[in-house]
Amino acid sequence: MEKFETRKALISVWDKTGVVELAKGLAAHGYEIVSSSGTAKHLEEGGVKVTEVVDLTGVPAILGGRVKTLHPTIMGGILARRGLAQDEADREKFGIPLIDVVVCTLYPFEETAKSGAELDKLIEKIDIGGVSLIRAAAKNYFHVAVVTETADYARVLDELDKKQEFTLEFKQELALKAFKNTASYDSVIYRGLCRELGVGEEVMEEKIFPLRVEQKLRYGENPHQRAGLFLPPLEKRPFEQLSGKELSYNNLLDLDTLLRGCSVFQDMCACTIVKHTTPCGAACGATPLEAFEKALACDPVSAFGGIIGITRKVDLETAKKITETFFEILAAPDFEEGVAEYMKEKKPNLRVLKLVPGYAPTLQFTGNRCGFLVQEDKLPKLPQETEGKWHGTPRPDLWEDIIFAWKTAAITKSNAIVLVKDGAAVGIGGGFTNRVDAAEYAIRLAKDKAKGAVMASDAFFPFPDSIELAHRAGVVAVIEPGGSIRDSQVFQRAEELGISLFEGGTRTFRH
Amino acid sequence: MEKFETRKALISVWDKTGVVELAKGLAAHGYEIVSSSGTAKHLEEGGVKVTEVVDLTGVPAILGGRVKTLHPTIMGGILARRGLAQDEADREKFGIPLIDVVVCTLYPFEETAKSGAELDKLIEKIDIGGVSLIRAAAKNYFHVAVVTETADYARVLDELDKKQEFTLEFKQELALKAFKNTASYDSVIYRGLCRELGVGEEVMEEKIFPLRVEQKLRYGENPHQRAGLFLPPLEKRPFEQLSGKELSYNNLLDLDTLLRGCSVFQDMCACTIVKHTTPCGAACGATPLEAFEKALACDPVSAFGGIIGITRKVDLETAKKITETFFEILAAPDFEEGVAEYMKEKKPNLRVLKLVPGYAPTLQFTGNRCGFLVQEDKLPKLPQETEGKWHGTPRPDLWEDIIFAWKTAAITKSNAIVLVKDGAAVGIGGGFTNRVDAAEYAIRLAKDKAKGAVMASDAFFPFPDSIELAHRAGVVAVIEPGGSIRDSQVFQRAEELGISLFEGGTRTFRH
Repeated sequence: MEKFETRKALISVWDKTGVVELAKGLAAHGYEIVSSSGTAKHLEEGGVKVTEVVDLTGVPAILGGRVKTLHPTIMGGILARRGLAQDEADREKFGIPLIDVVVCTLYPFEETAKSGAELDKLIEKIDIGGVSLIRAAAKNYFHVAVVTETADYARVLDELDKKQEFTLEFKQELALKAFKNTASYDSVIYRGLCRELGVGEEVMEEKIFPLRVEQKLRYGENPHQRAGLFLPPLEKRPFEQLSGKELSYNNLLDLDTLLRGCSVFQDMCACTIVKHTTPCGAACGATPLEAFEKALACDPVSAFGGIIGITRKVDLETAKKITETFFEILAAPDFEEGVAEYMKEKKPNLRVLKLVPGYAPTLQFTGNRCGFLVQEDKLPKLPQETEGKWHGTPRPDLWEDIIFAWKTAAITKSNAIVLVKDGAAVGIGGGFTNRVDAAEYAIRLAKDKAKGAVMASDAFFPFPDSIELAHRAGVVAVIEPGGSIRDSQVFQRAEELGISLFEGGTRTFRH
Repeated sequence: MEKFETRKALISVWDKTGVVELAKGLAAHGYEIVSSSGTAKHLEEGGVKVTEVVDLTGVPAILGGRVKTLHPTIMGGILARRGLAQDEADREKFGIPLIDVVVCTLYPFEETAKSGAELDKLIEKIDIGGVSLIRAAAKNYFHVAVVTETADYARVLDELDKKQEFTLEFKQELALKAFKNTASYDSVIYRGLCRELGVGEEVMEEKIFPLRVEQKLRYGENPHQRAGLFLPPLEKRPFEQLSGKELSYNNLLDLDTLLRGCSVFQDMCACTIVKHTTPCGAACGATPLEAFEKALACDPVSAFGGIIGITRKVDLETAKKITETFFEILAAPDFEEGVAEYMKEKKPNLRVLKLVPGYAPTLQFTGNRCGFLVQEDKLPKLPQETEGKWHGTPRPDLWEDIIFAWKTAAITKSNAIVLVKDGAAVGIGGGFTNRVDAAEYAIRLAKDKAKGAVMASDAFFPFPDSIELAHRAGVVAVIEPGGSIRDSQVFQRAEELGISLFEGGTRTFRH
């Protein structure tokens, strides 16, 4: 039967870009073009001879276009296994012509969702027929070429020009792309409807998400590693870049910690300085300038080449001060007029980022060699003086510094010890493999500012040794969650040494 | 028209679990059951009265079952907008009865892929009709209830029992699940075909992957964070747990580094000890015992509560030695007979993991507040003496230690400085925000073992200060990639101090 049949290409596209040229090219290679509704009209207007789907099926588009091609004649023509006697017999019996090429671009659900359309409009943009055509053709890729992206049209014609037919390799490549696209399409529908209906993602639910290339990066953590930044569709970056060089992979790693710093200190005018994914400075102040200068004073050696985040609108005076040191990023919710321009001229490489307000992801993903770790992305509630317990003399007068130290420790890599005095971190030990070394490091950084300072630990002290170090340096109060089997030793030692130890607040490990 | 119509439930299921009970329940609520092929037969055998799809469409299942329900009468009955004049008219004209419930479970593509079936068998398990039914019903969820999981059958009947009909809220929940399932289904097809056809994932390609719950974790990094371990379908954990407590979130974070250690040292009998995602010990030895004891000696304070990886089969003697210290995980490619049993009895909490050989992921994902960072997961090739440059007297006699130091630095958190002597790390400074402090820390740990040791830095030295510290401690050779604007100062200072500095090898940042 098919020996004398004309090869048929079914074309059903939402995006009409280049489809006339494609159809003409296919026709020139002997394909009969089959189409319906809008696509048929568009092709005919473009001078392409079209066989209407209704001429094959006897059923026109119905239900306002919701059902057009979903018919055994069309689906059978795509799905029939060539050369299989049973399928040949069925085709003969039911008059099903073979369809060898399917070209289909889907309704623009994603663009519609992005435009903020109403739910009913959004639902109309869920393509049913197109996905069925694509999936059927992709399943039968041994026999059928399925084209799902306008960007592939040129290659399709080129293949025909060169080889007169489609190689299995090419059809296979197209089929893989087709399934990737339908998978992506439905996951965007899922995420789009969830968003529209206000349904959040549960931690322990199975997840499905497509990742779209947001930015090709020069390289990854190191020059030998290719890399890119990806975003799930419908999600946006939490910042807008106003000036400076392109963000690097390592910038984006560090930025995560900076965003946490800006978030945890958003209730005050504060500055965080991050280097190698952990803070090396954090302070609050009456003005951005004061906060910056206090944050920088913590560890100016580490701060060199670091990134800065400020929780308030940045003024020109602060900006000028910042340019005196080498930083890679300055991020803030806003900038006074002229600041961005000043930075552009004075520090053209410095990446100036305007943060999107209220950005708060709910889940955190860590892909590693064991799989994907997913956890809630949140801090525990702030320690409350009424909910914890003082060992030694209570120091409510130091509570603000205690909370500042707790917050700083919470964004520091574990094991973390932070010394704070007058609203500024004066020593930060982060990323240590044991706690007493973290304490020693933080205390050494603090120098004589340790006198009268408070100290926060992100987890319990396994031994009293860190308390002893802190006491020798002049630390007067400590906050730690407790939880060690030697808690009583630690608390007792603190009392003996006259250190006020607040046992409270939840552990804030961050690795 | 539909006022007098019987409500219809279309049932088309691969997995027949519980479907007879569901159909009977639906029938009891007045639903007419519509079905075809295997499902119809199964239901009838179960005593359910079934209207065959062919009785509605006039077209039997064709092409060996590839086309069964893909017909305007069926699809239209699902997709028709109730109460819309145009759709009502079309239904009347073409004799399309409404379908109010769609129950569909898909062909088991994933199970078939897991079983290692041949390509043609696998392709037959790509469900076309079922996905079309599900998607159509989910699109029209205002009017249609779509059931895609056998686990939901009981709730479906329960809803009917309680409310006599399906609430919009329930139908919406089912529709979201439906789109999530079709998205997941196609992404598994995509990944399954890629695997079958040997197609790898490119770094910069858009990605689509479903994540399946592999293990519910007690909590995340901290007790206030719910968390789980997820895996893409068709992928397996890189280890088998032989004994011990359940792995925790923080275990799985640390394990990533340990797996890297086992990978980078797989050409020798070596031991890595990891704490807080960075090594605090690494050594090679003639036997696992020697390697372990040398690794432990590096930083026994940090090693307490850490995790151990050994690259060779672990014998009972080594196992006994290991039990003298508190560790959370012991991982190795194999264990001599009796070791697992010994550990089970002696240290029932210790997690003993048998590593899957040759596990090598190609991409690494880091989900953070900026999006998903994807990079190639690989080390640069090993430094070659012929490709770098010696500053000062070449020390080929120390080359093995130099490479061992380079490898250890490559798995250590940045900034990383590692001192090695006689095939063992004697000082590791990792996760520091400046390089000179990392050097100072590593040197201090090494104590008098720094004399005659070699030192590796994961990135260039910005100043000669670390070289000076190293010299004072007795370090005789250094490997670093170079790349600083002050390289010449650094190299010159090394030469002056009699340190042999090998400039070569690529940067190995790890954050």
